Amino acid sequence: MPGELPCPVWRTAGRLSDGRQIIYFDESDRRPHPSDLRHLPPRRPAGSALRTDPLAGEQVIYAAGRQDRPYRPDLAGCPLCPSRPDHLTEVPAADYDVVVFENRYPALAGPGRCEVVCFTSEHDTSFAQLSPRRVRTVFEAWADRTAELGARSDVRHVYCFENRGEEIGVTLHHPHGQVYAFPFVPPRTKRLAEMAAAHRDRTGSNLFDQVVAAEREDGRRVVGGNEHWTAFVPGFARWPFEVMIFPVARVPDLTQVDPAARDAFGLVYLDVLLRLDALFGVPMPYIAAWQQAEAGDEASRAEFGLHLHVMGVLRAAGKLKYQAGTETGAGAWSNDVLPEAAARLLRDAL
Amino acid sequence: MPGELPCPVWRTAGRLSDGRQIIYFDESDRRPHPSDLRHLPPRRPAGSALRTDPLAGEQVIYAAGRQDRPYRPDLAGCPLCPSRPDHLTEVPAADYDVVVFENRYPALAGPGRCEVVCFTSEHDTSFAQLSPRRVRTVFEAWADRTAELGARSDVRHVYCFENRGEEIGVTLHHPHGQVYAFPFVPPRTKRLAEMAAAHRDRTGSNLFDQVVAAEREDGRRVVGGNEHWTAFVPGFARWPFEVMIFPVARVPDLTQVDPAARDAFGLVYLDVLLRLDALFGVPMPYIAAWQQAEAGDEASRAEFGLHLHVMGVLRAAGKLKYQAGTETGAGAWSNDVLPEAAARLLRDAL
Repeated sequence: MPGELPCPVWRTAGRLSDGRQIIYFDESDRRPHPSDLRHLPPRRPAGSALRTDPLAGEQVIYAAGRQDRPYRPDLAGCPLCPSRPDHLTEVPAADYDVVVFENRYPALAGPGRCEVVCFTSEHDTSFAQLSPRRVRTVFEAWADRTAELGARSDVRHVYCFENRGEEIGVTLHHPHGQVYAFPFVPPRTKRLAEMAAAHRDRTGSNLFDQVVAAEREDGRRVVGGNEHWTAFVPGFARWPFEVMIFPVARVPDLTQVDPAARDAFGLVYLDVLLRLDALFGVPMPYIAAWQQAEAGDEASRAEFGLHLHVMGVLRAAGKLKYQAGTETGAGAWSNDVLPEAAARLLRDAL
Repeated sequence: MPGELPCPVWRTAGRLSDGRQIIYFDESDRRPHPSDLRHLPPRRPAGSALRTDPLAGEQVIYAAGRQDRPYRPDLAGCPLCPSRPDHLTEVPAADYDVVVFENRYPALAGPGRCEVVCFTSEHDTSFAQLSPRRVRTVFEAWADRTAELGARSDVRHVYCFENRGEEIGVTLHHPHGQVYAFPFVPPRTKRLAEMAAAHRDRTGSNLFDQVVAAEREDGRRVVGGNEHWTAFVPGFARWPFEVMIFPVARVPDLTQVDPAARDAFGLVYLDVLLRLDALFGVPMPYIAAWQQAEAGDEASRAEFGLHLHVMGVLRAAGKLKYQAGTETGAGAWSNDVLPEAAARLLRDAL
């Protein structure tokens, strides 16, 4: 089936035997996806529950059915590799480029949804090693999920992210990210939207535009970019090696990034990731998260500035920045690395 | 010198040779504290800087001078043990009960201040192993620091906390806590105060009182207490094993806890800590943080409910709850352990 997508990506949606949705994003039309291939035994996700924390005014998700999820399986037990007759996995395909499926152990399940995004069928690699072409395909998958999940009546926000590294709790090493379709607006998204609205009221201008323009003008913390994207260590970074990647033309979410900018994203992001890995000569554990507007909220969409927020968590070789009493208990961040120093180290890393 | 404090605690304040303040809280008047004992070579704390994150509207602390702080020294290198002629430490005393001194590697230094609180001179023990008498002395130290630091013109909030366990980044194993005297109101304190003010406006009642009354009435999540304190797993816990300890009579901060309640605190808290350690048969890594009112803000003080917030971070034996993409990137928490189940496990743990 030819893709309606603006770049040659072939999208094939199907169902796993337990009813969970699976969607392949292929880079050629040669991949067959027969629906009768075997995969891991069915598991109906246990439901999750939401409660409100009255002290902080925030929702908390409870998902008791997740305690038995796989914990650091070896390659032979990887559930994200393609299925073979002797090794059934989540993916009933002999091979794949990018595949998205509903999480077998979701934190959110009706309302909301959790999905897994496999970036490659290769087990022993990382996002930083993907080709720019592949990053383009992953981008299509992110935008596709933002559009489809964001249109659901039970979804208020679509959150695409990757956790990388055992140090931050990653239990499956196969390169993959996740999509959380939240039934509520998560606190950070809400906060950014509130700050942008207040800034508009106060100054008549857009907060994200002003932050990006100031970083570009100052220049000391810029670590990469091209005509479509700017990558910088924010002057107010919380993490030792934190990078924000903003499109040059502000858009509210992933669906609104134009084809040329989608094409141009991979080179900028891969360069940032390679620099993070080169800093200490070890793979940098990181969280990379797309911050985008609340789904369907026009006021939020008018002001929000989509960006990728990359948080590298090593502060020195072999030393992690932890979130302990100050950060977790008080919500106050202290950072041992000045943003200007972090940017210089990143620029010099390659 | 006899203590003016309401329990027999003898307070002796002095200066280290580099000018940093040191205060002993002794349980008898027999401890001499000659000021000429030797200790670690002087180090003037490097200053720290604050910047504002315009996107989130929060302050971030930068403290580049902390990168060379000790990282997991062994017993022989412990800087928190009493000094001996062959091993100079931070504490120029042959022994001590509880001692507080300015942090040699502060995250905050003018404005604001960071202090270290050593709970015992014994290296190989933990808070849970302290005697109730010792906890009483630690309480006096916390209250003393809240009063003295909170009265400073450069301090907006006094935050007393303990990080316990390598898993959350503790690099010194000697039992100790910390006091951060913030030059700004940290985000969580601010949020709790805002929520309490909004609740008062909406309902005419106090938010903290209502939460505690509801937990006591429901009873399913109560894990301990006596006539002065109530310990419960909040029905909206973010961490797998999270306990809040509230005084029965609401007070804004540690200085306002009356002597009888100070006496009664140790038994309740020690019981909670012993249960946390018993859960999986291993020392539970935790963050324990006193949430108290903003210093000197009368509106905040009228509504705020002091409580100790204990966050146990193991979700199962050998498995940590991490703050990764969902928590750190989106600010949204998912918890695999239902609060009612956590409370039951804690009640059954001893």
